[in-house]
Amino acid sequence: MKLRNSIRIGIDLMGSDTAPEAIYQAVLQLLQDGFPAEIVFFVSQDVSGELDASLEIVPCSQVIQMEDDPLVAVRRKKESSLCQGLKYLKEARIDAFVSAGNTGALLLAAKTTLKTLPGIARPAMLALLPTKKKEVAVLDVGANLTIKPHHIVQFAAMGIAYQKSRGIAKPTVGLLNIGAEAKKGTPQLQEAYLKLDAMNREEKIFAGNIEGKDVFNGTIDVLVTDGFTGNVFLKTAEGLAAFILEQLEQHFIEGSFSHLTHELATLRSRMHYAEYPGAILCGVNGIVVKCHGDSSPQTFLHGIKGALRLVEHGFLEKIKSQLRSDL
Amino acid sequence: MKLRNSIRIGIDLMGSDTAPEAIYQAVLQLLQDGFPAEIVFFVSQDVSGELDASLEIVPCSQVIQMEDDPLVAVRRKKESSLCQGLKYLKEARIDAFVSAGNTGALLLAAKTTLKTLPGIARPAMLALLPTKKKEVAVLDVGANLTIKPHHIVQFAAMGIAYQKSRGIAKPTVGLLNIGAEAKKGTPQLQEAYLKLDAMNREEKIFAGNIEGKDVFNGTIDVLVTDGFTGNVFLKTAEGLAAFILEQLEQHFIEGSFSHLTHELATLRSRMHYAEYPGAILCGVNGIVVKCHGDSSPQTFLHGIKGALRLVEHGFLEKIKSQLRSDL
Repeated sequence: MKLRNSIRIGIDLMGSDTAPEAIYQAVLQLLQDGFPAEIVFFVSQDVSGELDASLEIVPCSQVIQMEDDPLVAVRRKKESSLCQGLKYLKEARIDAFVSAGNTGALLLAAKTTLKTLPGIARPAMLALLPTKKKEVAVLDVGANLTIKPHHIVQFAAMGIAYQKSRGIAKPTVGLLNIGAEAKKGTPQLQEAYLKLDAMNREEKIFAGNIEGKDVFNGTIDVLVTDGFTGNVFLKTAEGLAAFILEQLEQHFIEGSFSHLTHELATLRSRMHYAEYPGAILCGVNGIVVKCHGDSSPQTFLHGIKGALRLVEHGFLEKIKSQLRSDL
Repeated sequence: MKLRNSIRIGIDLMGSDTAPEAIYQAVLQLLQDGFPAEIVFFVSQDVSGELDASLEIVPCSQVIQMEDDPLVAVRRKKESSLCQGLKYLKEARIDAFVSAGNTGALLLAAKTTLKTLPGIARPAMLALLPTKKKEVAVLDVGANLTIKPHHIVQFAAMGIAYQKSRGIAKPTVGLLNIGAEAKKGTPQLQEAYLKLDAMNREEKIFAGNIEGKDVFNGTIDVLVTDGFTGNVFLKTAEGLAAFILEQLEQHFIEGSFSHLTHELATLRSRMHYAEYPGAILCGVNGIVVKCHGDSSPQTFLHGIKGALRLVEHGFLEKIKSQLRSDL
């Protein structure tokens, strides 16, 4: 490991639904605008020759596709951009890795290459969502379809660490459930409730169960749930936000309120989670950001900026110390 | 069972967070405006004396509270408005029953009093939601926290029957999941997918997996899921819609676009599911509509109107014939 001054972020140009060139062009613009980090591009050999040779480019002989089986892909495609990026991260040749590729493969490769942090059995995907007040960190939004109650406590610890890295001194945690009372939900959730409640030793950290409709009131900093429910929650929020804003635009265009386009654009960007730094893969020993597979080049830029912030704010160290104190 | 001409709808004035008097006044107004059905009020003895004696009132000596344990309440409070209403429905003295009381108690009492329909193991709660195109019937939104794959097929049949009763000739069904591919989700969901796919014998009924973000595109008529996920889905949609509309109002007030209040009110009423006829308890031998416990008297009126439509359109008969043809 060589000593170096600037932060280096690796980007997987392959395996998403967006053309590598489109992402590349957007990142190039970002660099020209004075982005304060170095970028390392992981890209297929076919494409790498067309890129500016003065940039740091890692040509890869394989590509993991969206439809690939994660287990098979990670085993057989070690020379893919996805696997090579994680290898660079493991070797500390980059400080963070951003990919919009196959989620299952990214999860599995990150787990085997980087290893999980002490005290973490299951890495989780974390997404940040806007609310009426402060933003809420939701996890897991898709890494683990089924979990055990003690995993929820680990998710809570990771969410707290993340919010602390965003400058929130005492983050509070809510458990996504179908009612506020402790006895609500499945037996697993009732057990998770008790385990989370045990975190309230010295100070109030666990705020109890929270319903989907109350999440957006912004009373909590971290929302914990299993990866299936979290994924449904996130995608429902995204779909409904898009629906409402489209309805409004339609309304306004018909009513010749087109001068409100700017107002709507502001709100749209506030609501759309493309503006957010993608999902963070928490619980592995490295900073990995996952962007949507079907997202615009713009989304990548937010992912890259988000990754930089995580490095700058020592997210990984904060998670480690949080896990030491909590588990 | 006496012969009668007009449709009669029973209303539980007790057990919700709204004062019985407030609901009563709203319903009274509805009747004065020429509502084409008779109303039977089920109400606590304490309150019944204060109501107009020319109306049909059933005084009840017990009340099931929100916090009551459903099993205990249904066993010990047979003289409650909730249990009496269902008894009237069972005896065909009313054609539908509307309540905003304890959901668990309503479910359990409906199951034991009315019995489930042939072929239905688990009654489900159905809610209607707006989308970009047609409205989608979502079930289960809260009756069964955990289910088996074959229950999902029963939910689909009930959803289809409901949409047929709304005039849709060939309703299509989607399975709420975290991705479109057949192998997505838990093993249970994969099995449900195969079972639903077997419905596509003569015509395409099952449209496959559908993600939360795509539900609002309005491509399907029925969305099936377990009661936990469905409840989270519904409440997330409600909470987010309220959040976005509040943000917009704030925006517009600050930007002195207050002339847009009417536009927003229209959209708000389209989005807010208080405008929808509450959740329908499907799969029991009777028409039962459940309104929100914390809802306004206005919500009751929508629930009552919705119940009338279900009676008029022969919802129960349609469900029975759908179940005969599908299961």
